[in-house]
Amino acid sequence: MPEEKKKKLAMVIFSGDMDKLFAAFSIATGAAASNMDVTMFFTFWGLRALKKKKRSGKSFLGRLLGLFYGGDISRSSPSKMSFGGIGRWMFKKMMKAKNVPTLAELRQAAIDLGVKFIGCQMSMQVMEIPKDTMIDEVNQCVGVASFIEQAQQADVTLFV
Amino acid sequence: MPEEKKKKLAMVIFSGDMDKLFAAFSIATGAAASNMDVTMFFTFWGLRALKKKKRSGKSFLGRLLGLFYGGDISRSSPSKMSFGGIGRWMFKKMMKAKNVPTLAELRQAAIDLGVKFIGCQMSMQVMEIPKDTMIDEVNQCVGVASFIEQAQQADVTLFV
Amino acid sequence: MPEEKKKKLAMVIFSGDMDKLFAAFSIATGAAASNMDVTMFFTFWGLRALKKKKRSGKSFLGRLLGLFYGGDISRSSPSKMSFGGIGRWMFKKMMKAKNVPTLAELRQAAIDLGVKFIGCQMSMQVMEIPKDTMIDEVNQCVGVASFIEQAQQADVTLFV
Repeated sequence: MPEEKKKKLAMVIFSGDMDKLFAAFSIATGAAASNMDVTMFFTFWGLRALKKKKRSGKSFLGRLLGLFYGGDISRSSPSKMSFGGIGRWMFKKMMKAKNVPTLAELRQAAIDLGVKFIGCQMSMQVMEIPKDTMIDEVNQCVGVASFIEQAQQADVTLFV
Repeated sequence: MPEEKKKKLAMVIFSGDMDKLFAAFSIATGAAASNMDVTMFFTFWGLRALKKKKRSGKSFLGRLLGLFYGGDISRSSPSKMSFGGIGRWMFKKMMKAKNVPTLAELRQAAIDLGVKFIGCQMSMQVMEIPKDTMIDEVNQCVGVASFIEQAQQADVTLFV
Repeated sequence: MPEEKKKKLAMVIFSGDMDKLFAAFSIATGAAASNMDVTMFFTFWGLRALKKKKRSGKSFLGRLLGLFYGGDISRSSPSKMSFGGIGRWMFKKMMKAKNVPTLAELRQAAIDLGVKFIGCQMSMQVMEIPKDTMIDEVNQCVGVASFIEQAQQADVTLFV
């Protein structure tokens, strides 16, 4: 009984901006709902999307980075019109008014639909984000070679 | 008589920055001129590229958004060196000196070459951009599922 | 004796940000090390990654652009937390502490692994960056049509 092969989507999530994460999770959940096999590879600022709660690294620079960029997914700001937090508040408000799900809700939908979350090991080391500070649904923390392997087999590849 | 299948390019245009839009439309027109079937899915800030003229939403936040981001394609600023409009002026000047087409001209070339423009319905709702404020060449305003469908069949996919 | 066809990766490098270039070269070297055929098409700000040394254009605006954006790959700043150079210093420091290669080292690794570097002719003209100011390993400076040709044959395509 030959099973039709699922189409595959592989995304690099480099950005931690609210609006870009929103686009990324919308595409990921949309694809998973259309019966695609979806893998998201989170690297650099994108790792914020996987964090459990505010936490900083241990070195001085790690703590400095945490100060400005330590929050979880709900603390992300839009890439434009950030205005020191006003942009975030404004977009949340506009989205709520239109009954659009929050980022955390979209992420949960992705999990429920079987989207695979992979963390970039090297970024986690450089930015001092240990695995135990990330949500439990992170499937694995691996090097870029693992992403390449996924991407080679994918029908759609995107860098966000 | 078997016709050779056209290669397909599907792009997400998330950015509304002058320089990124320039790159996006250059790739789109280049691909269409090379006989590819091209679809551009405009979402978030990218929707600016499809607007007819300056216009704001109706709610207070919609009007605020319009104040800072309400212009059409000719009002986009580069992602770097924006300097409150100086960057835009400077790039326009440098491009003109080298006989490079403007963004509006590039968009028209894309239309003439048969590039399909699709607007992201959810972003249009959140950002309060009704369809009648967009250029007539916008083929349809649809959800992310329609983009996924296009992307699955595409040979090249890009997120700009 | 049929040789298996190499998988192909085609990237547009639009960004000149330190962190994005880092991601781009990591993916490129990772892919080349996995025996993929890799082409990087550098355009706009991304051209900085190929410059030999600080140099500005000849026109007044070209010189102004050089003043703010004239440095080579080692002068790139991260896309977030730039803080007038502090971000660059901080990331270099954090990466060094974790024995992560520098951007210049990553670029050299890409060259050694046979990654092809292509410069976007139109951007070079607009931004007044002549070929002789770029590193010798730039294979060719061509129009967007050449990139389209590469991308059509590619298994993975990314816009960074």
